[in-house]
Amino acid sequence: MRFVDIIEKKKQKQILRKEEIEYWIQGLTEERIPDYQSAALLMAIVLNGMNQEETTILAKSMMKSGEQIDLSNISGMKVDKHSTGGVGDKTSLVLGPLVAACGLKFAKMSGRGLGHTGGTLDKLESIPGFQCFLTREQFVEQVEKIGLALVGQTGDLVPADKKLYALRDVTATVESIPLIASSIMSKKLAFGSDSILLDVKFGEGAFMKNIEDAKKLASSMIQIGKNLGRDTRAVLSEMEQPLGNTIGNALEVQEAVETLQGKGPKDLTELCLASAELMLLQGKIVSNKEEAREMLWEKIRSGQAFEKFCDMVEEQKGDVRAIRDLSLLPQAKQISEMKAERRGYISGIHSQKLGVLSMEIGAGREKKEDAVNHAVGLKLYKKYGDFVEKGEVLCSVYHDSPLETEWITRLQESFEYQEEKPEQKNMIEAIIED
Amino acid sequence: MRFVDIIEKKKQKQILRKEEIEYWIQGLTEERIPDYQSAALLMAIVLNGMNQEETTILAKSMMKSGEQIDLSNISGMKVDKHSTGGVGDKTSLVLGPLVAACGLKFAKMSGRGLGHTGGTLDKLESIPGFQCFLTREQFVEQVEKIGLALVGQTGDLVPADKKLYALRDVTATVESIPLIASSIMSKKLAFGSDSILLDVKFGEGAFMKNIEDAKKLASSMIQIGKNLGRDTRAVLSEMEQPLGNTIGNALEVQEAVETLQGKGPKDLTELCLASAELMLLQGKIVSNKEEAREMLWEKIRSGQAFEKFCDMVEEQKGDVRAIRDLSLLPQAKQISEMKAERRGYISGIHSQKLGVLSMEIGAGREKKEDAVNHAVGLKLYKKYGDFVEKGEVLCSVYHDSPLETEWITRLQESFEYQEEKPEQKNMIEAIIED
Repeated sequence: MRFVDIIEKKKQKQILRKEEIEYWIQGLTEERIPDYQSAALLMAIVLNGMNQEETTILAKSMMKSGEQIDLSNISGMKVDKHSTGGVGDKTSLVLGPLVAACGLKFAKMSGRGLGHTGGTLDKLESIPGFQCFLTREQFVEQVEKIGLALVGQTGDLVPADKKLYALRDVTATVESIPLIASSIMSKKLAFGSDSILLDVKFGEGAFMKNIEDAKKLASSMIQIGKNLGRDTRAVLSEMEQPLGNTIGNALEVQEAVETLQGKGPKDLTELCLASAELMLLQGKIVSNKEEAREMLWEKIRSGQAFEKFCDMVEEQKGDVRAIRDLSLLPQAKQISEMKAERRGYISGIHSQKLGVLSMEIGAGREKKEDAVNHAVGLKLYKKYGDFVEKGEVLCSVYHDSPLETEWITRLQESFEYQEEKPEQKNMIEAIIED
Repeated sequence: MRFVDIIEKKKQKQILRKEEIEYWIQGLTEERIPDYQSAALLMAIVLNGMNQEETTILAKSMMKSGEQIDLSNISGMKVDKHSTGGVGDKTSLVLGPLVAACGLKFAKMSGRGLGHTGGTLDKLESIPGFQCFLTREQFVEQVEKIGLALVGQTGDLVPADKKLYALRDVTATVESIPLIASSIMSKKLAFGSDSILLDVKFGEGAFMKNIEDAKKLASSMIQIGKNLGRDTRAVLSEMEQPLGNTIGNALEVQEAVETLQGKGPKDLTELCLASAELMLLQGKIVSNKEEAREMLWEKIRSGQAFEKFCDMVEEQKGDVRAIRDLSLLPQAKQISEMKAERRGYISGIHSQKLGVLSMEIGAGREKKEDAVNHAVGLKLYKKYGDFVEKGEVLCSVYHDSPLETEWITRLQESFEYQEEKPEQKNMIEAIIED
């Protein structure tokens, strides 16, 4: 097999055979195929596409490129989730304890934030002492014991994805449904959960700009999951504004805790409940959504969901006092209020801009090596559709260093206004169950 | 400027700006831009195209990537030609002496053969003692003295093209009109001739499969040439069968000499005359084609064209006796005749297959490092449209080693037959002069 002939086929919009895709991924992993050949094939895939069968084969080949995690020693239903990412997305911190309190085993490996997006590990590390890196044995033991673990990735899972992602990032080949679907699913498949719940975002700042593409991506991932015998379902949620009211690590932990206590913002609560419902169905804990929602509210009201979070913090060596008394979480030196420059309805909040602004004051990292300031961030008081008077407080900035005028201007420009009340949108646009 | 943004633009089918194309070619030449990024951009160009302005800028940027050859010290009109390549194409060997005999300065750098295509240098080197590599001074001096030099490339001409071509070859990005046009023209432009004549082939085995694409390629190259003030014209010729009757180095030299003496095969003679006419017009030696053709025949009949070839051989240290007595050229140990397996009209001769077969018996090289056997090759007695009886000789194989049965079968399969006389085609389909 000559790799140039495989590139030629995709250039001519032909369908690649199983052996050809496997030859690519093995060659890429073992560094037999040079990056310039993979780059040419990636661009051909972006422009000429891949059908569902090719995409499934690609995901499987990638999954097989490294270690696979065996969770079969853990009793019960192991559930996993993946979000395509969004500014202010702290759903894992809420969902995990919530479904674990209902009896599922929520075992998840997460990542750090980069650029305008935050990372679950950075958020958890704002809890003093919290340990994200466990041995494989500790991880399995903890999930068996309390039904919940949120940890950093260890081991050599899906090396092909790491290589491909690094290459896609510098060759303008990130945006492609088959490439995104196979990348996400290869990682989920290498991690041996029984079911996978996908939170596919669309809108400004998301990979998928519209609901149609989000549906295509979700369907593709569901097909891949099914093909490998995993119950895979998806929630499609709109990302025209940040999720919840906070952006920044300790601020997001605080909001997650409040949500677990039934005091969270409406959009975050709704997304977590809708996702948890699907997970309970996937885990066969309930037989319908009404039953699921009832059980979830019961776990919130009774405090069991919050206590599950505390259990995890304790197991992972975090200071539980900082969760029971949120004022013990890292605090920013200064809080500055930003006021509305005009009256009107909020018709848009640019997530990506707010993500970048938060990163610039220290909440995120520009380069992988950068440190993160856990205390800083943004808290929003007004969201899409809310009416504001001129001079009313729109948001608070939690910061340690003085804010620059130019930064404040960009913060102001992240909000859009209009005269008439904007049309109310559903954050959850669709749920795809098969 | 971030290179990934340039790739992104072309991925989105946008037009690249001058600075962007120059940034690419400079970065590629200086090895600042990694091959995987260039490979992604190449594939995006192949699939999304480039307009004429982008193509011209690309050719110019490539031309400027290395040394440029100054021919201004040579008196008279310096003419150059380029053929997109074909099996049995020995036109340079005929055209050069022919137009030099008419008073033009024909100075040309040529290459070696690779794969199924032959190379002018290999053909010339079948003349005992012939030196293809001259110093720049010797080259200029010879052109000034006898109006003719056919030499190998020296110096660092268009390094960007060398890098790009090597990359295109292994990334399935060879076939693209803007990439082919800019590659060819960058080399022609770096070589300071006053005019450029292009022989654009189309058909089986050529880059351009049909006349429409060949016209597009020719027009694009003419536009590039004009933009840089060079009189550029093109002959579009069909390549459904080898050019002339011989394939193989010494055999082709022999055929070129016979053509210069007016005894050449019809198709080769016609292509050389049509090309030479255009060159004489470009060189302002004549005012119309009739006048041109008259002058060309006069140079052939009088022996001046042939003597010009002899002058070149002598100047470049070749043994002129081998040209005056062609039996002194390298001779194969054995000549085997191949007979027609059936009666009928020849309806096709697969050039590329014959090129590969010739290479396999030693006339060409598979890898750059391979040596070439100058004596071996093929001589055809029947061409497209000819009638053959079963058992009649189709061609002779000039070889040094025994022929394998499988090889002979493939040689038989290179010819196609039909019952009815096939439609006569014009080898020269079009001439584009602006």
